[in-house]
Amino acid sequence: MSEPRLYLALVHYPVKDRAGATVTTSVTNLDVHDIARSARTFGVRRYYVVTPIELQHTLVRRILDHWTNGSGRKRMPERWEALSLVDPVVALEHAIADITQREGVRPKLVVTAARAPEDRPVVPVAEARSWLAKGDHPYLLIFGTGHGLAESLLTSADHQLAPLDSGAGYNHLSVRAAAAIYLDRLLGA
Amino acid sequence: MSEPRLYLALVHYPVKDRAGATVTTSVTNLDVHDIARSARTFGVRRYYVVTPIELQHTLVRRILDHWTNGSGRKRMPERWEALSLVDPVVALEHAIADITQREGVRPKLVVTAARAPEDRPVVPVAEARSWLAKGDHPYLLIFGTGHGLAESLLTSADHQLAPLDSGAGYNHLSVRAAAAIYLDRLLGA
Repeated sequence: MSEPRLYLALVHYPVKDRAGATVTTSVTNLDVHDIARSARTFGVRRYYVVTPIELQHTLVRRILDHWTNGSGRKRMPERWEALSLVDPVVALEHAIADITQREGVRPKLVVTAARAPEDRPVVPVAEARSWLAKGDHPYLLIFGTGHGLAESLLTSADHQLAPLDSGAGYNHLSVRAAAAIYLDRLLGA
Repeated sequence: MSEPRLYLALVHYPVKDRAGATVTTSVTNLDVHDIARSARTFGVRRYYVVTPIELQHTLVRRILDHWTNGSGRKRMPERWEALSLVDPVVALEHAIADITQREGVRPKLVVTAARAPEDRPVVPVAEARSWLAKGDHPYLLIFGTGHGLAESLLTSADHQLAPLDSGAGYNHLSVRAAAAIYLDRLLGA
């Protein structure tokens, strides 16, 4: 496989709460770490942490600073290697603009959700895997925190991936686990 | 596939620290939640949290109690469904004894590590998947916290699974991500 042209975004706004209302969630330390490590493992190019809350950018930058300049980098260089992929942005459009500048073309937006929509088709993961293997276009894979991406994001994306249905009738994976599994299915050996 | 006879253990002792010394790590809230949700998603029968520290059992039981009896169960019944798989035990032998009682036969022990040993073969994940599909024996899949399971556990197991090599030259997945990916490869649709 040529080097994958895959980017990843973790969205904290606009996402749904339990009742389906649009909310902003908080950035958590472990979402930054875990998903950065998974991203690095599978060769993702950048990992955007999307939140409009400036104070949360400060939090993310403090984490990054500890591991890239502070004592953390010396003690655990492999953590720095993963966290150096992380980029806090205020909105998804900023991630898209950054990728467009890097790649010279606007990325296709691929959203994920725990359930398939009733009125739109989803893309089998194997098909998306073949797009990445061809490498003729950059893709931005988008995950939602809370109870998932807001409808406005789901309906405006280029593609929605098939949910990670295991057949056991339970679809409440953590976003950290879902990101790991999707990346493995898309890019794993 | 018949119902998988797979059990999972997350070991906090004996595991390695960065320098390879044997240590006891702390139980973290998110390891309990995330791996329970992944376990439930893929139909794992029980999820044992292994630590000799009694105070940590109290912590785990407090988490379980909140989600199984407290306000959590009403608010998020799907979280209870996952956490009801969790069982804190003081040593791996207790998990093995519990499984033996449930299944009528001692489980085969399958360990995981970020690197393959030089002096022993590893089992390809596809082969382990076929064992589970046959369903003629129970298996206990064992993950280590910290910097991985102590050598004593690795060498005394029945099998060691092949590491999750992605080809990108980086093998520092979080245990939460590694557990999710192994379960998907072993039991995913």
